[in-house]
Amino acid sequence: MKTVTILGATGSVGTSTLDLIEREPDRFRVRALTANGDVAGLADAARRTRAAIAVVADESCLPALREALAGTETVCEGGPQAVCDAAAGADWTMGAIVGCAGLGPVMAAVRAGGVVVIANKEPLVSAGDLVLAAAAQSGATLLPADSEHNAIYQCFDRARADRVRRIVITASGGPFRDWSTEAMRGVTPEQAVAHPNWSMGAKISVDSATMMNKGLELIEAARLFPIPHDRIEIVVHRQSVIHSMVDYVDGSILAQLGPSDMRVPIAHTLAWPDRMATPMAPLDLVALGRLDFEAADPVRFPALQLARDALEEGGARPAILNAANEIAVAAFLARRIGFLEIAAIVADTLSRFDPPAPASLDDVLAIDQEARRFANDGVEGRVKDSVN
Amino acid sequence: MKTVTILGATGSVGTSTLDLIEREPDRFRVRALTANGDVAGLADAARRTRAAIAVVADESCLPALREALAGTETVCEGGPQAVCDAAAGADWTMGAIVGCAGLGPVMAAVRAGGVVVIANKEPLVSAGDLVLAAAAQSGATLLPADSEHNAIYQCFDRARADRVRRIVITASGGPFRDWSTEAMRGVTPEQAVAHPNWSMGAKISVDSATMMNKGLELIEAARLFPIPHDRIEIVVHRQSVIHSMVDYVDGSILAQLGPSDMRVPIAHTLAWPDRMATPMAPLDLVALGRLDFEAADPVRFPALQLARDALEEGGARPAILNAANEIAVAAFLARRIGFLEIAAIVADTLSRFDPPAPASLDDVLAIDQEARRFANDGVEGRVKDSVN
Repeated sequence: MKTVTILGATGSVGTSTLDLIEREPDRFRVRALTANGDVAGLADAARRTRAAIAVVADESCLPALREALAGTETVCEGGPQAVCDAAAGADWTMGAIVGCAGLGPVMAAVRAGGVVVIANKEPLVSAGDLVLAAAAQSGATLLPADSEHNAIYQCFDRARADRVRRIVITASGGPFRDWSTEAMRGVTPEQAVAHPNWSMGAKISVDSATMMNKGLELIEAARLFPIPHDRIEIVVHRQSVIHSMVDYVDGSILAQLGPSDMRVPIAHTLAWPDRMATPMAPLDLVALGRLDFEAADPVRFPALQLARDALEEGGARPAILNAANEIAVAAFLARRIGFLEIAAIVADTLSRFDPPAPASLDDVLAIDQEARRFANDGVEGRVKDSVN
Repeated sequence: MKTVTILGATGSVGTSTLDLIEREPDRFRVRALTANGDVAGLADAARRTRAAIAVVADESCLPALREALAGTETVCEGGPQAVCDAAAGADWTMGAIVGCAGLGPVMAAVRAGGVVVIANKEPLVSAGDLVLAAAAQSGATLLPADSEHNAIYQCFDRARADRVRRIVITASGGPFRDWSTEAMRGVTPEQAVAHPNWSMGAKISVDSATMMNKGLELIEAARLFPIPHDRIEIVVHRQSVIHSMVDYVDGSILAQLGPSDMRVPIAHTLAWPDRMATPMAPLDLVALGRLDFEAADPVRFPALQLARDALEEGGARPAILNAANEIAVAAFLARRIGFLEIAAIVADTLSRFDPPAPASLDDVLAIDQEARRFANDGVEGRVKDSVN
């Protein structure tokens, strides 16, 4: 029996994880489930899985959680520290809390050792050096739930990293992969969130449209896999069937292919180093017919170059990139700025301040907050300019 | 230092192997090189690599070999038994002797243990059960040099074979993949040997055109990988960039991609479980542009079904299939029978006799000889029919 904890059990990744765990009740025992404030969702999951612990980060929800789980053996807790406390102690921990709120709990899980699955970008993008150092100290194994990094993980021989020539991250290219910069100028939020292959939230869909998602994945890949940054390439592959590849010095490329369903990479991490069944139908390559490949264009998609530069410069730069992008995407979705201004706001913010590398999670949170302030200023400035 | 022996050092696979070994002289020491009768080629390779032993299977060539290697420390031997004697004793042995002549030497290498690389089909198709039993007894590791099986080997988790859902062997489909049966009736040897992706000998090119190569590979895959036969599929992939795939129960498919150059799979086997550099340029997927997939058609390509049936029936059937196909292809290349008659001759031969499963290599050789006689009779009958 593997004990499992899900940090962020009521979101999309959390419910996909629960779906898999509940298919093999003899294989997994749920230690802790956490949510922000979705008491009904959390209580329902805790009842179904007989979780030992259920935690709401929003402490004001604790009485409702206790009531919802009355009569069960589940221990209920509340507040951010309780989430961090619950994060330690399982064989396998899914870190699926959205945003910087997930940093503390993931770090707690990493410090406790065991397998920690990274499903949000902040631990590797904003606090990458700290998380990797903690994992090196505790012996924790970091497994990526993101389909691209999970694909690389399945293909990358960590015992012989010096035999890897390249990592090739595939990108759908988003809905505007064939558009000129001029045509992208007038893109609406509705156009940007219509992702061709994956059903995703608005923020992630916009990141896919700007290709900032690939920029962030480039940074994550550089943290996860010991390979020089300039050997990580991005190739546009519109069908998103090949999720990424590893090219070895002998000319062999290993690739992972699969359906566009998060349960595939999550199942890989859950069963690792074994495998477990999922309800996915076998991939039908004949029905797919063809797979296409095109070059990624850092001129039309400047987010790619911004991310590569932030990775190269290191320190606080990736955290600033990520925070500024969140503010810019939100402003675009609120129709306050145009599509092309997203990358411009990120570039502006990166040029505005240059704090030292974070030495603690508190430093990361401070950098994140300050980057958001600068980015918000940038948004306001642009809104004012366009009004005048 | 890994000691290596090449059985069949002067052929295409042998010279590709030598090319790789000579690139890393500090990593490999050549124990034995063998050839049939190419004294000049063998002596030259033995001098360059300072081989400990050089053997010609054709004993009448031994004096010439001794003369060519006079003044070196290479020990020269001659005759089929000397080839078998030289086959044992290296850490790594390449079995690249064409046809049934390779069976004895490969079996000697397998019985001696170590890594034995299978580069011709007879050991697995005609004598599969015997070779596998010998490997199980000696602890020898069989590695496939064929690009498809080598791809599967790189993707197949042997420690968890029960987690594999399917093996997908890719097929170029040969030059007639889009042709109707009627159109194939008039195919000439010149048309059949014009393979789209690989530069190969005439026999193998015709096997690719009839898709018998995929039938034989299906049988080899069933020997090499512990998976039910009906879970081995064949998919037409005209670019031959993905060399084969392994589909796991979780929905992940692992694939190996690479250039169409035998040095890639050979390098994998030479360095395994490590990797070694080859002079291959990185695969440029953007330049390739696209990869296509189509269903393999066992109606237009009856060789596929013949091979699947022979695999299912087991015993002597695969050896008969292989021997009959060699005779039929030779008759086609000599313009004695038509293209469609190749499969017909094989089917006829399989229906003509049904010996018990071979219990020794001598049995295999006897079955092979008898199948060739029956197939030759079939060819003569058809030639007579077409003359009358």
